Amino acid sequence: MRRHYRRLLAMAAAGAWARLPSYPRARQHLPGGRCPAGAPGTAGDTRLFLRAIEGAGAGFEYAMFLNAAERRLLCLFQPGPYLEGHPGLTHGGAIAAIVDGALGTCALAVAGTVMTANLSVDYLAPVPLGAVLLLDGRAERLEGRKVFLSCHVRSADGDTLHARATGLFIRLDPTKHPAQEEGGGR
Amino acid sequence: MRRHYRRLLAMAAAGAWARLPSYPRARQHLPGGRCPAGAPGTAGDTRLFLRAIEGAGAGFEYAMFLNAAERRLLCLFQPGPYLEGHPGLTHGGAIAAIVDGALGTCALAVAGTVMTANLSVDYLAPVPLGAVLLLDGRAERLEGRKVFLSCHVRSADGDTLHARATGLFIRLDPTKHPAQEEGGGR
Repeated sequence: MRRHYRRLLAMAAAGAWARLPSYPRARQHLPGGRCPAGAPGTAGDTRLFLRAIEGAGAGFEYAMFLNAAERRLLCLFQPGPYLEGHPGLTHGGAIAAIVDGALGTCALAVAGTVMTANLSVDYLAPVPLGAVLLLDGRAERLEGRKVFLSCHVRSADGDTLHARATGLFIRLDPTKHPAQEEGGGR
Repeated sequence: MRRHYRRLLAMAAAGAWARLPSYPRARQHLPGGRCPAGAPGTAGDTRLFLRAIEGAGAGFEYAMFLNAAERRLLCLFQPGPYLEGHPGLTHGGAIAAIVDGALGTCALAVAGTVMTANLSVDYLAPVPLGAVLLLDGRAERLEGRKVFLSCHVRSADGDTLHARATGLFIRLDPTKHPAQEEGGGR
């Protein structure tokens, strides 16, 4: 994980790629760190789903790098032992979750506030817990409020294609809370 | 949540539906509680992904009920505050994860050990944190080793259709560990 992380950091230092910050709460990812008007149920102790599992290395360990000009996002991801599905293997739902997080982040960078409208994942090879993966996501095209994205999930050494995915995200009106819009579920 | 849970328990008491047990570790869900030969990396402290978030009500709160004759599974689900995506709303990846868990459980009951080959979720209406949902999943058909399933995610009162999903699961050779098979990612 560290070796691949250093490689991506070096790539970011060269200019075209930017390491994205990661916060434990969803609102911190929004412009200015504020909630849109009418956000429901945000007074209590909430946690961004991908940062909800306690313990270093136990859950979703990841770092995202954005290339805005190419509308492309790389996500280095290591599933911890609390993401288990079959014994010793990563749960399909955990893979769907990190893909949704990566593609949503890419769509946000390209089109502003978005929500998932469709996510489809083809699982091609099981992912052992602790494996180091590289998600390569990109916005393929924009049509009105729709952002179409694709993602490949490979072993970090590039040898194995573990999953392929597509995502459709809908751009929201930034002055409204997503709960007031139709569609979307992120 | 309790009211809907009691309704499903009463339905189970009537005979056709069975409340399924839930364990914190994946291997406990397999026949005899044992791992297949060759299971990698299962010696340490692992946790089933859907049971990985600590704290009552913080993560995935759910109960599953199976109707084996109808090849149908109902899953009562309440997303806790640690499943946040947009402020106050459930992360799309968390919805994909519970759908994968529910359809995988249904496929397991119908066809034995399975892995996810494809999961596709249409997000139709945002899900506030703390909402009570009812997932209605069923195995539509079996073709060789393939199990085709569908799922509707509605508010527990039935008024709102929040998501629709399809799943394709592949039946595995029960004597092999899933990591030794092609495809699949659960």
